[in-house]
Amino acid sequence: MPDVASPVSGASDFQIATVAGGITAPAGIRAAGVACGIKPAGLDLALVVPDEAASVAGLFTTNKVLAAPVVLSQRHLAQSGGVARAIVVNSGCANACTGASGDAVAMSTAELVAARLGCPPTEVLVASTGVIGVALDFQKVSAGVRAGFESLKADGGHAAALAIMTTDTSPKETAVCVRTPKGSFHIGGMAKGAGMIEPLLATMLGFVTCDARVEPDLLRRAITSVTAETFNAITVDGECSTNDCVLALATGASGVVIDADLYPALVEGLRTVCRYLAIEIVRGGEGATKLVTIHVTGAREPGHARRAARTIANSPLVKTAIHGGDPNWGRLISAAGRAGVPFDLRHASVRIGPVLLFGDGQPFDDESPAAEKYLAGKEVTVSVDLGSGGTHEATMWTCDLSAEYVRINADYRT
Amino acid sequence: MPDVASPVSGASDFQIATVAGGITAPAGIRAAGVACGIKPAGLDLALVVPDEAASVAGLFTTNKVLAAPVVLSQRHLAQSGGVARAIVVNSGCANACTGASGDAVAMSTAELVAARLGCPPTEVLVASTGVIGVALDFQKVSAGVRAGFESLKADGGHAAALAIMTTDTSPKETAVCVRTPKGSFHIGGMAKGAGMIEPLLATMLGFVTCDARVEPDLLRRAITSVTAETFNAITVDGECSTNDCVLALATGASGVVIDADLYPALVEGLRTVCRYLAIEIVRGGEGATKLVTIHVTGAREPGHARRAARTIANSPLVKTAIHGGDPNWGRLISAAGRAGVPFDLRHASVRIGPVLLFGDGQPFDDESPAAEKYLAGKEVTVSVDLGSGGTHEATMWTCDLSAEYVRINADYRT
Repeated sequence: MPDVASPVSGASDFQIATVAGGITAPAGIRAAGVACGIKPAGLDLALVVPDEAASVAGLFTTNKVLAAPVVLSQRHLAQSGGVARAIVVNSGCANACTGASGDAVAMSTAELVAARLGCPPTEVLVASTGVIGVALDFQKVSAGVRAGFESLKADGGHAAALAIMTTDTSPKETAVCVRTPKGSFHIGGMAKGAGMIEPLLATMLGFVTCDARVEPDLLRRAITSVTAETFNAITVDGECSTNDCVLALATGASGVVIDADLYPALVEGLRTVCRYLAIEIVRGGEGATKLVTIHVTGAREPGHARRAARTIANSPLVKTAIHGGDPNWGRLISAAGRAGVPFDLRHASVRIGPVLLFGDGQPFDDESPAAEKYLAGKEVTVSVDLGSGGTHEATMWTCDLSAEYVRINADYRT
Repeated sequence: MPDVASPVSGASDFQIATVAGGITAPAGIRAAGVACGIKPAGLDLALVVPDEAASVAGLFTTNKVLAAPVVLSQRHLAQSGGVARAIVVNSGCANACTGASGDAVAMSTAELVAARLGCPPTEVLVASTGVIGVALDFQKVSAGVRAGFESLKADGGHAAALAIMTTDTSPKETAVCVRTPKGSFHIGGMAKGAGMIEPLLATMLGFVTCDARVEPDLLRRAITSVTAETFNAITVDGECSTNDCVLALATGASGVVIDADLYPALVEGLRTVCRYLAIEIVRGGEGATKLVTIHVTGAREPGHARRAARTIANSPLVKTAIHGGDPNWGRLISAAGRAGVPFDLRHASVRIGPVLLFGDGQPFDDESPAAEKYLAGKEVTVSVDLGSGGTHEATMWTCDLSAEYVRINADYRT
């Protein structure tokens, strides 16, 4: 089993190494995280500001209920043709289902930031996360924007990562340096998300910055392909929210231009950053005590493997069994069997870690103690072969389901 | 809001009244529940035996992993042409994923019962519920079958209902008398199910008996139509198991023959019994503290309404909010929005009980205290209008998600 959380990889014509700095690791990006009273305590507003207009690409939630900032940012992306001068993010309030006044707050926020930068409002993107249906107080946001501009720094990535947290137990940020024969560039990222996580085309909130020069269309293609195997391959609770988005900025400040030759290096760098962030979201999932990698093989089509992996990853019985350290492989096979994809019990198999517990139609319960010992760890992999005779596979990451998840979500508002 | 759990209804040309006796309320049915050591303690084997060959219809799980008793009963139903002399059910072991030896135990069980009754084994149906992947001990089953035949009684319904329980907190049984101009007949039923409940074409285990004469094809048509709106309209945890089945027996001992005139009375009687049992399964769901009715309106197609209701009913965030008594309508609308069906936020609405919390694109948070008060009850209804301009609707029943659910399922085997 590969170390899924490792943010380091390499290839023949480029090398990727982890570096410090989060979203401000790339050149030409400043960021800030400030407290403006949207949350009862702590930082709650982040600014990410490239020194000059940057290429930008965005992916948004597939939920039919779109928060005001999602609607606005989608429109601004279309109107600007993929150019951005700033991203402003608040935590503590989703500004979703807040009617026309919620739309007005999102728009006023963009206008305020644009006025400060002297750019059109369409070059400002807005994101929010927090409780749905509660009005976002523009007085607080505007105070936060003013304070944010005063504290923008070239090493402000960590403060920004702190400011986008809600029920997250720790900030999620990373950065890499990608060395290529044509020069080096940096990619940084931050994300938040602990509950309402099963993105399906975007994730809670993920922000990626890059100092290579990347045309907006190419940036969109790269972030779309990478998101499918990272942010879209995780689930905490099967909930796709009203506010999910991934935004990627490319400043060009490194002088490296992404062409066809360098595209694989860009994709691999983005994948390294996004996979790290996605896995950290799961590891910090609400109430999570274990990071679970679900590996499905033996599918006739890629979509079958993904669907079975998703069904297993969202199964409350699988997640509670793993929480209890119980090698209850029957729940894994039952979840695979109800996923609605070809499945043949006679040729299927289930492994918990390296331990084969079911194969060729027979259980191997003598192996149960070994699997139980393996499950005591904090990172576990479960592997299910669908036995359908195909060669496709998929990996998803999820966490266990604990009583703490219930406590957090039964008490979230009241 | 109608009293969803009420097992009484009426119509112009027939009346339905609740009676005692469970599955042995209909004439010509004897039943038994005995202990044979499959479970550590308590009754664990039930027999349901009509005095003469009865019509039988069955619906089975859509999970691609089929337990041995499901495979056998499906085959026997096909081979017998819808005639049965006995149903034998064990709890404490699912006999699923148990390979060829599991198939042999199911077959031997049917043969043993058939030998006792002097009928072909194809007229015996077998069902099991419990842990997946553990061998079912035929020595214990055969001792149970012998003891069961010795204690068969015309009032043995309650013992049988006790014997099919696993993590259920109470037995689930009911019976009605259907009075028609052509005579009266009885319908009785019992069910089990507390976890791994989201049937999709059948349910955990449901057994219905009737003393009207009903041809097998008509019985199948009636139980199929009723199951769609009862056993298939519930979910505890979104898990469709390897063993789900609904079996309906009709003895004809009342002398009443179901023809086209009486078919509506049969369906309404079956619906009354199955709806009561389905709701009791949810009310007794693992860790449940509240019975939740999800009512979705404003859908363009019936399938849209059902799909949105199912998504809401399985949402862990909705279920934890209700557990916490939190009128967090944002989670309801977010779940409806991610259900993959037409949804228009501008015309959508959300009610918790009678309290309108969101409508015409605006939240009504002043109403939150009233909704919170309502949510303190043990039975709650939440209503979501999809705002899509359609007139279709659907109802599903679910329960809240508690820390106790996690405790039960993290500790179930170990």
